[in-house]
Amino acid sequence: MLRVAVAIVPEVRQLLREDPSQLAALLEEIHDEDLADLIELLDDEEAAQLLKSMTAADAAPIFERLDEDTQEAMVEQLGVDNVASIAAEMSADERTDLIEALPEAVGDTLLESLEKVSPEAAAEVSELAKWPEDSAGGLMTTDYISVPLDLTVADVIELIRKGGSDAETIYYVYVVTKTNRLLGVVSLRDLLLNPGAALLADVMTENVFSVSPETDQEEVARTMAKYDFNALPVLGADRKLLGVITVDDVMDVLTQESSEDMQRLAGVEPIEDGYFQTSFWMFIRKRGPWLAALFVSEFFTGTALRHYDAVIQSVAKLSYYVPLLISTGGNTGSQSASLIIRGLAVGDMKTSDWRRVLVREFGQGLVLGLMLATIGMLRVWMWGDGTGFVFTIGVTLVAIPLLGCTVGSMLPLFLKRIGVDPATSSTPFIATLIDVLGIIVYFNLAQLFLAKVIAAHVHPG
Amino acid sequence: MLRVAVAIVPEVRQLLREDPSQLAALLEEIHDEDLADLIELLDDEEAAQLLKSMTAADAAPIFERLDEDTQEAMVEQLGVDNVASIAAEMSADERTDLIEALPEAVGDTLLESLEKVSPEAAAEVSELAKWPEDSAGGLMTTDYISVPLDLTVADVIELIRKGGSDAETIYYVYVVTKTNRLLGVVSLRDLLLNPGAALLADVMTENVFSVSPETDQEEVARTMAKYDFNALPVLGADRKLLGVITVDDVMDVLTQESSEDMQRLAGVEPIEDGYFQTSFWMFIRKRGPWLAALFVSEFFTGTALRHYDAVIQSVAKLSYYVPLLISTGGNTGSQSASLIIRGLAVGDMKTSDWRRVLVREFGQGLVLGLMLATIGMLRVWMWGDGTGFVFTIGVTLVAIPLLGCTVGSMLPLFLKRIGVDPATSSTPFIATLIDVLGIIVYFNLAQLFLAKVIAAHVHPG
Repeated sequence: MLRVAVAIVPEVRQLLREDPSQLAALLEEIHDEDLADLIELLDDEEAAQLLKSMTAADAAPIFERLDEDTQEAMVEQLGVDNVASIAAEMSADERTDLIEALPEAVGDTLLESLEKVSPEAAAEVSELAKWPEDSAGGLMTTDYISVPLDLTVADVIELIRKGGSDAETIYYVYVVTKTNRLLGVVSLRDLLLNPGAALLADVMTENVFSVSPETDQEEVARTMAKYDFNALPVLGADRKLLGVITVDDVMDVLTQESSEDMQRLAGVEPIEDGYFQTSFWMFIRKRGPWLAALFVSEFFTGTALRHYDAVIQSVAKLSYYVPLLISTGGNTGSQSASLIIRGLAVGDMKTSDWRRVLVREFGQGLVLGLMLATIGMLRVWMWGDGTGFVFTIGVTLVAIPLLGCTVGSMLPLFLKRIGVDPATSSTPFIATLIDVLGIIVYFNLAQLFLAKVIAAHVHPG
Repeated sequence: MLRVAVAIVPEVRQLLREDPSQLAALLEEIHDEDLADLIELLDDEEAAQLLKSMTAADAAPIFERLDEDTQEAMVEQLGVDNVASIAAEMSADERTDLIEALPEAVGDTLLESLEKVSPEAAAEVSELAKWPEDSAGGLMTTDYISVPLDLTVADVIELIRKGGSDAETIYYVYVVTKTNRLLGVVSLRDLLLNPGAALLADVMTENVFSVSPETDQEEVARTMAKYDFNALPVLGADRKLLGVITVDDVMDVLTQESSEDMQRLAGVEPIEDGYFQTSFWMFIRKRGPWLAALFVSEFFTGTALRHYDAVIQSVAKLSYYVPLLISTGGNTGSQSASLIIRGLAVGDMKTSDWRRVLVREFGQGLVLGLMLATIGMLRVWMWGDGTGFVFTIGVTLVAIPLLGCTVGSMLPLFLKRIGVDPATSSTPFIATLIDVLGIIVYFNLAQLFLAKVIAAHVHPG
């Protein structure tokens, strides 16, 4: 997706060196997102020079799209006062994110400097910074249009024309009391499709969907996606309008939350930046602890096997089936876990549905187990290990998918219930648990079905 | 997310039986999405009765939100002619999806019936049905607003007021030639913030982002999310405007594509409906074949172990480490695979980056391996299995994460390169491959480091 930015880097570099006054003409037709990519590709000094050549109003939408690391570097290069002028032109939510992402001392200095440039912009930051970054309060902006109730459609359109340029969305207008209580919402579409003389009260929708500032950002995103909302108001106590969440912020949340779930599922702590933007040691920090934890817990498979030492000593063949059996437990467990974790994420199910899930997963485990047992018994018979083995493997192959499906589905629901991200049950962790259980089931069945064979080996003759 | 619908079911059922004329008042303030949920919760007969009680224009936005199965059931209940009237009021893209989702014979009959109700609506379907469902052409709608170039801002606003009610978005207006070539785009925001007398030509943006109808839907979604677009035009040959993709359709794509990737990663064929909407046997069909394939490929671990029969017979302990070692390969492999698959999905990397990825993953595998080897050697030493074991396990634990990281990262890139969905390399499949390789490495190292111990057992005394 960096094609545009990569393509213009050489030309921009040349102009920066030779004729910076030509830059504006080159960059005018390029989207802010591509300009942000461009800045990431340049050296810090070049990037700072480029941003300096722009007005604060032009630089703001680019600056708010930069990576947090680059923002920090630019604050260093440009100085806090220059960045404060840019920040004053940024949208309120992005301005807050910028200050929160900076090291605390730098952020504080920037906020002080911002207070001189625009006390209003600084106040908005203090207001928005109250809420956690991953909540509705952290996503919302205070740059919305609100109007009193006693207006006509034509009045409102006139108000938008005059004051709309700073608002993040002009497509929804919020109707509020003097104390900012939300009375209703009207879309620009409804405004335009109604006669100018119509009363706002007759045109607006009173039954407004809203969220509280504490609502989790993923729930906000799912709600907006489900109902096809372009904007969603955030209400505090007594239906006070605190801010508005726009669809563009929510699309990033959908992508980010899915990435995090996918990484957690695979036993990687969520990584914020892109693959090539993440440092080598960051990867080690995100992967290492999970790997080590899984490795140590997998020691129990060794302990379990040692427990059956006498059996294995007498019939070594028994151990040849272990990888096959435990990988089957892992596979069924991963399948169930990913289905449930995704179901929870997209709002398909709640933790209180656990009984229904358990019944379904038990049934699936049974059918899948019978299927695998049939294939497995055939294979054992072909390997010529004897009837005792055929039965041991057959019954184990029914038991293990049952374990996989039930543990794999119940663990995420349990974690969610106790307030832990269900994806943290990362499928390798479930696999480890099922590995140990599977070994215990297998050797107990073996001792049952292969009693004669084992005895023959232990007491030869 | 079904709360609203669940809450009103009893009241709706009662009114359907006793006083259907009261229904309109109850349902008026409820969002179409919740009404669609409501219909899914009712019996087919009740649902049909409810839809019949509405005008076609009211029923259309609800009908287009129903599951494909329910749509099919409603066609059966209401009859093709009634549904044709509703379909004529649906947006062009949803209308096409409806007809494509029905069994072919039913879809054809509906299209014939639609031709009588609205020849124009039927023509739009024939136009849109040309494109694959998961392409930009399959996502786009033909319900957009287009205007000629020689207008003023006030003219365009007047046009929107008169003709905007059918358009899927009125927030972007497309400026086209008489042959429908795209000249530029102007947002409603720009129209309102400019004086009415301004010329369209001076206000519009000429450098318009667009996609071709063949563009993959995931790329469309990523582009819109990256650039915060609310709508994106689809252009055919000679920049002919074929349709427009709106942000609400794209949010569903983001969710759907992530779900599919997550399921494929866990070895489940993508499941379209929600967990509880999917039938038992559908789950078996989506899980069974993958499980069976993985199970059969895991037979090779048995074959590999049998190959080292003599070694295991002499030192049974060797087999106790197998689950620990192969699960470590699986874990590192899953980590790498999920990072790469996600990186490809969000456009972080291309297949041509494989060399850079290989270098990074090799490095990570080495560091992670050294870390695990340190822990592992300590544990083996504590188990008291002797120096030969300590070395065998140590070196194997460096080799296996190296294998895991390189195979886990290269296989998705290779699959993508040959045109297969990289998530199809589902991590269990990678794990199976690494399991077998890991066993081979382990026993060869054992034969090297434990030669004396093995020899002592094979030839006792």
